[in-house]
Amino acid sequence: MTIYSGEFGLETSGNADVIDITTQVSELVASSGINDGIVLVYVPGSTAAITTIEYESGLIRDLKAALERLAPEGITYYHNERWHDGNGHSHIRASFIGQSESFPLMHGNLLLGTWQQIILVDMDNRPRSRKVFVQISGE
Amino acid sequence: MTIYSGEFGLETSGNADVIDITTQVSELVASSGINDGIVLVYVPGSTAAITTIEYESGLIRDLKAALERLAPEGITYYHNERWHDGNGHSHIRASFIGQSESFPLMHGNLLLGTWQQIILVDMDNRPRSRKVFVQISGE
Amino acid sequence: MTIYSGEFGLETSGNADVIDITTQVSELVASSGINDGIVLVYVPGSTAAITTIEYESGLIRDLKAALERLAPEGITYYHNERWHDGNGHSHIRASFIGQSESFPLMHGNLLLGTWQQIILVDMDNRPRSRKVFVQISGE
Repeated sequence: MTIYSGEFGLETSGNADVIDITTQVSELVASSGINDGIVLVYVPGSTAAITTIEYESGLIRDLKAALERLAPEGITYYHNERWHDGNGHSHIRASFIGQSESFPLMHGNLLLGTWQQIILVDMDNRPRSRKVFVQISGE
Repeated sequence: MTIYSGEFGLETSGNADVIDITTQVSELVASSGINDGIVLVYVPGSTAAITTIEYESGLIRDLKAALERLAPEGITYYHNERWHDGNGHSHIRASFIGQSESFPLMHGNLLLGTWQQIILVDMDNRPRSRKVFVQISGE
Repeated sequence: MTIYSGEFGLETSGNADVIDITTQVSELVASSGINDGIVLVYVPGSTAAITTIEYESGLIRDLKAALERLAPEGITYYHNERWHDGNGHSHIRASFIGQSESFPLMHGNLLLGTWQQIILVDMDNRPRSRKVFVQISGE
C-alpha cells in the first residue's frame, strides 16, 4: 500500500467552462504504478468543481442552463454587495457540485462508464489558471 | 493496509427509481474483513447517482419532485435534440448528485445515522441493469 | 500506511446553520501524524451536509437562499404529511449536498484554496448536536 500524489494545470475561460480532464487523470493513474485503490480527483478553491458527465456539446449547454436555474447570475447576491467581484453565483454553484469526485481503481483500470467523462467546471466569472490534484491510496 | 474490491448488480426501473443499497454495501464491508478504513460506494455511468437519505416513501416522492424542479423532464435539452434519446434531464440530475459517496469504517462498523440509508438513484428514462462498486482502503 | 480515525462534536442552531469546521479538521489532521493521504470529512445523519465555501457572511446568506430555491421550506412534502416533523426540506437539501467531502493531504498540508473553508451545514429545522468524523488513509 502506498500513496501517490499527482497534479496538472489547466487554463479555463470561466463562466461555467466545462473541461474534460479524463485523459490527464488517466495518464497520472497509469504513471502511478498503482493497480488497485481509491482515486481522488480534487480542485482547490471555492469557484470550481469536479463531477462526471457524458462530455458532448449538447449536455454541456444543458449543464450551464441547469446551473443558471439553481443560481442565476443576475439575481442579488450578498457576496457581491460586500466584495463587488460579481461572482456570488460562482461560489454557490461550486459549493453545490463539490470540489472532488472519487473513483475505484481495479486491475489498473479507472472505473468509468462508456459515455462518462471526468470534468472540471470553472464557475468563476473570469478566466482562471487551475490545478487539479489526483491522490491515490492503493497498491 | 489493503484494498478490497466488491461489487453487486441490480435492476432498476429508471425514472428516478430510488433503491436502498445499504444491506448490499454492509454485506460486502463485512465480507472484506477490514475493520477500519474508507469505504467508497460508486456507480459507473452518467445517468445514475449515489447519495444517502432516510429511506421512506414520502421522502422518495419528495426527492423526485426536487429533481424535477432542478432539471424538469419536459423542457428543451440540447442533448435530446442531438441524440434523440430523451434523457437530457437524467444526465443533468446525475451530474448534480454525483456518482459516489464515501463513508468511514470504524471497528467494523459503517458509520451511518439511525435513519440514514445509502441509495442509488437511477435517473435514466428507462429500466437499466446497474453495477455498484464498493472499494475499501483500510486494515 | 495506516488509518487514522478522529472526531469532534459541535452544537448547531439548525435551519441551514453554516459552521466553519476547517480548524477542527486541520487539528485532527495534524495530530494524526500522517503526512500524505486522503482525508475524508463526514457527518452521519440525513439532515446535515459537508461541503466547502468561502466562509463570509454574504455567501452564507446566499447559500441559504439557494437551498430555499432548490427545496423551499413552505411547499408540500410527503415526508411531513407522514411524520409531521416538518423537516422534509431538510432531508432533500442534505441529500443534494451530500454527507462528505474528501481532500488530498500532501506533505502535512490539507489542500485548500486561500479562500476555501470546510463547512458543515445543518439543514434540520431545530438545534442539533452533531459529530463530525475525520478518517485518513495515508502514511
